[in-house]
Amino acid sequence: MEVIGRHKYELDTPCLLIDTDKLEHNLRTMQESVQGAGKNLRPHAKTHKCSEIARRQIKRGAVGVCTAKLAEAEVLADRGIEQILITGPVALPLKAERLLSLLERCPSLMIVLDNSENARLLNSECEKKGLRADVLLDIDPGLHRTGVAVTEALETGSMLMELRNLNLMGIQAYAGQVQHVRSYSERCDKSLSCMNEVQEAFRALKKAGMKGRVFTGAGTGTFDIDTAVEDLTDLQVGSYVLMDAEYREIGSADDDNSFALFEPALTMLASAVSCNQNGFVTLDAGLKSMYKDGAAPIVLYPADRAYSYDWFGDEYGKISFDGEIGGLKPGSIFELMASHCDPTVNQFDYFHVVKNERVVDVWPIDMRGRSQ
Amino acid sequence: MEVIGRHKYELDTPCLLIDTDKLEHNLRTMQESVQGAGKNLRPHAKTHKCSEIARRQIKRGAVGVCTAKLAEAEVLADRGIEQILITGPVALPLKAERLLSLLERCPSLMIVLDNSENARLLNSECEKKGLRADVLLDIDPGLHRTGVAVTEALETGSMLMELRNLNLMGIQAYAGQVQHVRSYSERCDKSLSCMNEVQEAFRALKKAGMKGRVFTGAGTGTFDIDTAVEDLTDLQVGSYVLMDAEYREIGSADDDNSFALFEPALTMLASAVSCNQNGFVTLDAGLKSMYKDGAAPIVLYPADRAYSYDWFGDEYGKISFDGEIGGLKPGSIFELMASHCDPTVNQFDYFHVVKNERVVDVWPIDMRGRSQ
Repeated sequence: MEVIGRHKYELDTPCLLIDTDKLEHNLRTMQESVQGAGKNLRPHAKTHKCSEIARRQIKRGAVGVCTAKLAEAEVLADRGIEQILITGPVALPLKAERLLSLLERCPSLMIVLDNSENARLLNSECEKKGLRADVLLDIDPGLHRTGVAVTEALETGSMLMELRNLNLMGIQAYAGQVQHVRSYSERCDKSLSCMNEVQEAFRALKKAGMKGRVFTGAGTGTFDIDTAVEDLTDLQVGSYVLMDAEYREIGSADDDNSFALFEPALTMLASAVSCNQNGFVTLDAGLKSMYKDGAAPIVLYPADRAYSYDWFGDEYGKISFDGEIGGLKPGSIFELMASHCDPTVNQFDYFHVVKNERVVDVWPIDMRGRSQ
Repeated sequence: MEVIGRHKYELDTPCLLIDTDKLEHNLRTMQESVQGAGKNLRPHAKTHKCSEIARRQIKRGAVGVCTAKLAEAEVLADRGIEQILITGPVALPLKAERLLSLLERCPSLMIVLDNSENARLLNSECEKKGLRADVLLDIDPGLHRTGVAVTEALETGSMLMELRNLNLMGIQAYAGQVQHVRSYSERCDKSLSCMNEVQEAFRALKKAGMKGRVFTGAGTGTFDIDTAVEDLTDLQVGSYVLMDAEYREIGSADDDNSFALFEPALTMLASAVSCNQNGFVTLDAGLKSMYKDGAAPIVLYPADRAYSYDWFGDEYGKISFDGEIGGLKPGSIFELMASHCDPTVNQFDYFHVVKNERVVDVWPIDMRGRSQ
């Protein structure tokens, strides 16, 4: 089916749409905001998993892009994108072969370390190949998922400085636990409290001789908060570019009940498959397309009355409404904002890119499923 | 990385494994059980999304295979598999072009209908192309997801009989609401009660002149229960072939606390990425690999003590344990039984097929992401 030029509501379902005007609005707004605060942008590609969007982020001024996994970084490198930071520790020796091969063809790659034994293994693998790897010390700002404790940062960082085939470029600290705190002022307090502790550790490392000046962290929920951390150099925001119901629900600097600075660029189209019940119809999008995590998906279209979505098994959803069924029948189209954008995107192969409601392009989600 | 011949615990992670002996045990056990009860097997490919497994199901004696979606059926048809039943209603006119094209090249395709207007549209599309489509009337046994009410079955079925380009082959009724009822006796009562009501409607349709004799339904949870429904011809069981934590937890005929007749053929390998905390390590498998739905995933390896898994964001999991960290370090391997097999399988591109713990084959999950 040739899709270019079609109206979005004539597409087969379920599928993902990106509204290009909203996407560009989000790209521009974040770039200007972060740059205006004197920081750099290093957006996270784990959200969109699409090298075309990564390319646009760099074109607008990002200093690089982040991936969560080695396999995602391999895709970006294949597409000619450099300045990649893999934000999750890469375990050696398990992944040594793939990591060293990527380092060889993409020398600007940065990775994070939070374990001395892994650091020594990487150093000796690099030595064998005559490579030097750019690394960041991953510091745990309280999420307790990865990173060394703030109190261990100086010791581990000093050890890294002694490894001759590693360049310690600085530190990373991602406070995932504060990104979705609803109250903006509470989010401010929590994020600045933990990020300022990390900053102390960063300053101690510099005093101890660390040459690297990178201090990377933050997320969409703290994009205008962590800029107050003086030494922070760049922000790893991800969801802002697509947005989802989960982020729309938190408070923002302007409004403690909504986060509307970034627009819902990502939506999902689905259609009714069965309409024999009172008060609801069955949709063709269930667990395998609308990932079940986070806030309830928001029904954006039709807008004639309030509709709500709930999951109804692997392949089905339930669209509920008050009153009569009206004109709904099998094939009726619904447009929804995803509950949680990252894992939902990861269930599709393409974005249908829409401008003024018509499809203008199709972008492969080329990092989809790259979970290794 | 050449994987054939490798020990399973030397594979990169996260990845999915299928133990071929357990798979064959499940295939054989189900085929024998259903055949022994005088019924046919029409297993559901939506679970495994792998044409190689569908081929094995047919080879063992299945009369056909089910898919949930048109796009899955297209893949099976491309692989030369016939006798496909699409168990979800296909909405016209939205999907008319794809459906008619598939019907043309796969005349043994069966689809279900639960809407008169859609039936008329299909009939007229078939007429234009000189085709006759084999259809089943989808009857709702109480799940209220798809299907016409039992009380409407005679009227809608009679209408279908009058449409000259449709062959009414019989009925479908899937009681999804009873499959995971924990108590076996309660599951028996509930399933037989609703399936016997459907049987009455089936008999009324035959009395009214329906030639078709297909009465298809049931799932893994009622595979040895619905065989008592006299007119039921075939069982659409899906999960039995792979199994998951959700199904292992329900009761069975032999034991009201476990369902162990089918073996956990599907497992996921993951590895530790960060080990700096007390009482848990961070794993490289989160929402995007272990789908968050159903029962808690079960940690099968290592077996030296009890470990439990919990989700820890999009890309991470948390493995908790009592006591010291012991030998765990970045790269330590864990093998887990999936929470809910269907949506977890849908997040991967390959099964690594293992025999005696070594990889003997790699099967593409070629229906992965085919949600349309």
